[in-house]
Amino acid sequence: MSARRLTLSTIDGIPLVKPGDDVTSLLLDGLLSSGDSLEDGDILVLAQKIFSKAQNRYVSIADVTPSPEAERLAVEVDKDPRIVELILSESNEVVRHRPGVLIVAHRLGYVMANAGIDASNVAEGGEEDERVLLLPVDPDGDCAQVRDEIKARTGVDVAVIMNDSVGRAWRSGTAGIAIGVAGMPAILDLRGDDDLFGRPLKVSIVGIADELAAAASILQGQAAEGAPAVVIRGYSVAGEHSTGQALIRDKDEDLFR
Amino acid sequence: MSARRLTLSTIDGIPLVKPGDDVTSLLLDGLLSSGDSLEDGDILVLAQKIFSKAQNRYVSIADVTPSPEAERLAVEVDKDPRIVELILSESNEVVRHRPGVLIVAHRLGYVMANAGIDASNVAEGGEEDERVLLLPVDPDGDCAQVRDEIKARTGVDVAVIMNDSVGRAWRSGTAGIAIGVAGMPAILDLRGDDDLFGRPLKVSIVGIADELAAAASILQGQAAEGAPAVVIRGYSVAGEHSTGQALIRDKDEDLFR
Repeated sequence: MSARRLTLSTIDGIPLVKPGDDVTSLLLDGLLSSGDSLEDGDILVLAQKIFSKAQNRYVSIADVTPSPEAERLAVEVDKDPRIVELILSESNEVVRHRPGVLIVAHRLGYVMANAGIDASNVAEGGEEDERVLLLPVDPDGDCAQVRDEIKARTGVDVAVIMNDSVGRAWRSGTAGIAIGVAGMPAILDLRGDDDLFGRPLKVSIVGIADELAAAASILQGQAAEGAPAVVIRGYSVAGEHSTGQALIRDKDEDLFR
Repeated sequence: MSARRLTLSTIDGIPLVKPGDDVTSLLLDGLLSSGDSLEDGDILVLAQKIFSKAQNRYVSIADVTPSPEAERLAVEVDKDPRIVELILSESNEVVRHRPGVLIVAHRLGYVMANAGIDASNVAEGGEEDERVLLLPVDPDGDCAQVRDEIKARTGVDVAVIMNDSVGRAWRSGTAGIAIGVAGMPAILDLRGDDDLFGRPLKVSIVGIADELAAAASILQGQAAEGAPAVVIRGYSVAGEHSTGQALIRDKDEDLFR
């Protein structure tokens, strides 16, 4: 029996994304220019930042007026109060904070530092033309839209995952997670399946879309390489579809909030 | 420019592992029988359970006498007091508990449910011949040993990761993490690197061995398939080597312990 195999490939030829760009067109043009194509069952993993940029989720820091709450919290976390204002406006709840760290529950449920806002480009002195980038408004909807558009334009049935790199409890370093999912099960519920000996499994619910998001993140790189789109081939996406929301643990079942 | 590519392949032909088995021999025999071979730079991701079994880390529940502390905690978490005794004996600290859930800091630093002990096969009524499986004594050492043995027997220079599937704060479902690493950097420290515009990166420390562990976990499967060994090809392992310990966040920097 031959080995099971999974391949991950970057989609090359994607230009820097600008507000108003059509992500699906950029992906299909990139594939065309490199002579690649999609196949039924492929999983397309797309970096959050290209959606945020296409949707013009930039905010100019100079336009932000911090609330008294943001001013107060900014002192405690040692951040620009305007950034803190943006983080709070994108969040439902502050989960933890200390100097240099502000971990919140994003309005869509993800627990992450700084509500996923990319504020690394904001000069500490506060240059007035600096911009930050918020997460997309509706990552699950964006994934469903790309999936539908690819089906309409090419006839190919793919799954789409939007990923971001986030810090984690207990572990050093970031890992990719899925903040949007379409066309596949986001989690695998193996309860009822048996192990090799016909006994119940130790691990019964797998965060499969997070594992796929982490795998793509390896290729996407974090540095100047810039490979926002990865095609994963060889994983069966069979099963009832669910969204990125399925990967969020209910607050009342979460011992770490 | 051609797309960058990562391939993950299972090593087939590995029999069920028994106490006393030599893991390296099983891997090399499996590769040989399927006509595959390793290449310099390959990353071998191996499931924790094959090491635990080879090292006979089984414990018969009937042989365990719970301490008063284990008896007390067992009531609170609604688990067999003998299992709780084993969890405590494998741990430095109880991090969270509630009925059905016992999350500890394993003696090696990993924060995980049940100290990583596979207790799923223990009947609730307590059949007296049931066994559970503890984590290996020294996962980093095991990885280094497999790496060294492969180098000695084949001349090939591979990295080795031991992975396990663990539950996570905030997220539903398990994901693979690296509990042992040899022959590569376990984390990527990109501080000092620039982004596409020459500005500092948003994400600067990547838990790369965890991402590789999660990727392999996709192929390893959780059910009857049973593919404990995965070869990852195409990722550059350049950089200063570190162990699985590098992936553990220092307790005094961890806001979730």
